[in-house]
Amino acid sequence: MKIVDGGVCAPKGFMANGLHCGIRQNRTRNDLSMIYSSTKCAAAAVYTTNKVQGAPIAVTKEHIQDGYAQAILCNSGNANTCNADGIDIANAMSASAAKALGLAESDIVIASTGVIGQPLPLEPICSHMQPLVDGLSKDGNTEAALGIMTTDTIHKEYAVQFELQGVPCTVGAMAKGSGMIHPNMATMLAFVTCDAKIEPSLLQEMIHEVADDTFNMVSVDGDTSTNDTFAILCNGQAENAGVTQKDEAYDALKAAVYHVCETMSRMLAKDGEGATKLLTCTVHHGCSVKDAKAIAKSIISSTLFKCAMFGRDANWGRILCAIGYADAQYEVNSIDVTLASKAGSVQVCENGRGSQDPRFETGFDEELALKILAEDEIEIIVDLKDGQAEAKAWGCDMTYDYVKINGDYRT
Amino acid sequence: MKIVDGGVCAPKGFMANGLHCGIRQNRTRNDLSMIYSSTKCAAAAVYTTNKVQGAPIAVTKEHIQDGYAQAILCNSGNANTCNADGIDIANAMSASAAKALGLAESDIVIASTGVIGQPLPLEPICSHMQPLVDGLSKDGNTEAALGIMTTDTIHKEYAVQFELQGVPCTVGAMAKGSGMIHPNMATMLAFVTCDAKIEPSLLQEMIHEVADDTFNMVSVDGDTSTNDTFAILCNGQAENAGVTQKDEAYDALKAAVYHVCETMSRMLAKDGEGATKLLTCTVHHGCSVKDAKAIAKSIISSTLFKCAMFGRDANWGRILCAIGYADAQYEVNSIDVTLASKAGSVQVCENGRGSQDPRFETGFDEELALKILAEDEIEIIVDLKDGQAEAKAWGCDMTYDYVKINGDYRT
Repeated sequence: MKIVDGGVCAPKGFMANGLHCGIRQNRTRNDLSMIYSSTKCAAAAVYTTNKVQGAPIAVTKEHIQDGYAQAILCNSGNANTCNADGIDIANAMSASAAKALGLAESDIVIASTGVIGQPLPLEPICSHMQPLVDGLSKDGNTEAALGIMTTDTIHKEYAVQFELQGVPCTVGAMAKGSGMIHPNMATMLAFVTCDAKIEPSLLQEMIHEVADDTFNMVSVDGDTSTNDTFAILCNGQAENAGVTQKDEAYDALKAAVYHVCETMSRMLAKDGEGATKLLTCTVHHGCSVKDAKAIAKSIISSTLFKCAMFGRDANWGRILCAIGYADAQYEVNSIDVTLASKAGSVQVCENGRGSQDPRFETGFDEELALKILAEDEIEIIVDLKDGQAEAKAWGCDMTYDYVKINGDYRT
Repeated sequence: MKIVDGGVCAPKGFMANGLHCGIRQNRTRNDLSMIYSSTKCAAAAVYTTNKVQGAPIAVTKEHIQDGYAQAILCNSGNANTCNADGIDIANAMSASAAKALGLAESDIVIASTGVIGQPLPLEPICSHMQPLVDGLSKDGNTEAALGIMTTDTIHKEYAVQFELQGVPCTVGAMAKGSGMIHPNMATMLAFVTCDAKIEPSLLQEMIHEVADDTFNMVSVDGDTSTNDTFAILCNGQAENAGVTQKDEAYDALKAAVYHVCETMSRMLAKDGEGATKLLTCTVHHGCSVKDAKAIAKSIISSTLFKCAMFGRDANWGRILCAIGYADAQYEVNSIDVTLASKAGSVQVCENGRGSQDPRFETGFDEELALKILAEDEIEIIVDLKDGQAEAKAWGCDMTYDYVKINGDYRT
């Protein structure tokens, strides 16, 4: 598997574009994006579990029901959620895109992100549909990735190439964070393109499996958003024989999609609102994957622990506390905890109690811990010394800037 | 029911004291407190649901098992949790107090609060036990309330007098917050004293019921602490006939205990770490109390909503979002939301959508909303327009100071 340029445009047959249509007041920021495949794609998606769902989700669910789609239209600046005419607006967006692209409405995936509860104006979207479509190109991936950002500080895109059934195959992606990010799915927008040929029903299974281990294991602030969607389009232009069952080819494609989604997950966590650090929590030797995941998520989601990481404070008691309120089975007196980064690693807790290294007053090397926590990527390694299950979750520290960003989001 | 002075010393037969023994480095702050009744008390307690529990909880559970106790000993500055010899230390604290008071060890309630995972030194506690006991007095309530504070900015105490079975009866309390505060029980330390006569088994039932509607409905940061304990002592010195069943007298006593605990809950939320505002969320017309509570707690716990309240931003979309991920039954399209304070009230959401007052661009009076949110006590009123269940939860805003306090808690 090798990293390639081009983001969502890297796979054969995909083009993209993004522009400023006027939903946002800031004219320097794109707020409308499109991804288009020159041929029909197997399509699948996973959505937020929030019971209050954006209108675009209802429309996309309907369109994707048959397992196929050909284009994605997404606006930022307004979530089109909790509006009286939200469904009508989402349908009109979809109709406008379908007309400009010469496609059926049912082949359009729709998404919106931004403020909840303000009517989404249709005019700027419709009046910019033709220029958006006219500008579609193999180089449009970054403009498109820029157009779905909200409080993200950097756009997020990635692509890899690998071999599938003897032919080169490519997976590309773009995503946006960065607040209201919490398990469960889909805790952000992520659009993945791929030129592999695969059965739609298998693709749907695959992205559920991948989402559970990647995007659903990211938490920025514990708030599960109303709108977020992870969608994948596979157009088959790689001309592989076709993935029709859970065989080696399925595993190879899944590994590539997983790698792309894990990379996007790390990007999302690292660019969490106000974040200065990426936190990766790895849990080893849990009784079950469910237990290991619950513990990893609980640590990554603890506000107190996130503040401690911002303050470079090796306050491992907060890790134990977060494990304690996780809904999981484990033996408290077996837990080991190690903090690690490029600067080294230090075990802070052994068998559920503070490490007892006699050379140090607090039982571990605080000076080294401070150096470890000064890095911008921190690993928290928990060993439950129980079963064989593993899990990984990604998060970020809690900072003054998170409070600042969210104290006045609407203005 | 009338408010009286004296906190935990207000009921007949109770004395208290607090002093600095040296667990904390700051000599100006008390770190050891005692509450003592001159006669044996019916005793009951509720504890944290965290699986990682402080050693004092194990000891207190054992001591209170017979339904009786006579004194409470509590230190701050160190939680005596995740230490190799925690139980031994908690037992030794208890033995030291029992000896100085001339009581059986099994009549001592023990609690500790502060940093997790650092050995609690026994020497300062034991060497100050005699002065602590010698200083017990009817005026010691405030010194005791000061001695259990951690990051609290003000000590919290309260007492009321009411009539029970024809005689005056008094309930007093002290409590501490103010981080790691989240449902479920017991999300802080709260010690309630009372001179009523009541059966221990009834008392235990009563405080479970009261805790579920008061302390368990407070959230500061979503972190359920390892140590927290709500204990009540009733010494019978009011000379009421005795509460022996769930009759009118039980209800009268419960109403007083409830009122005291609700008041303490509000104090805890208002003094949440870094908080500038008390948030009270009231949910009306839920299908069930469980549903109404889940929704009230979800709103109060949303980090994004808490930031918006700090920023005086009437971003009601975040309230709907938090309702959406609450584990509850309701009809999204029926939900009304109103924000209120001393400055007035404004309905921001009607039937699950933004209010549509044509006089205002965003559908509601933003200027009035800003005035409402500038107050330091804000009410969020949610009407589910469904069943008859009600619930109330208390929380606070999320501020820069929360991050600051918790970025460097241990130093």
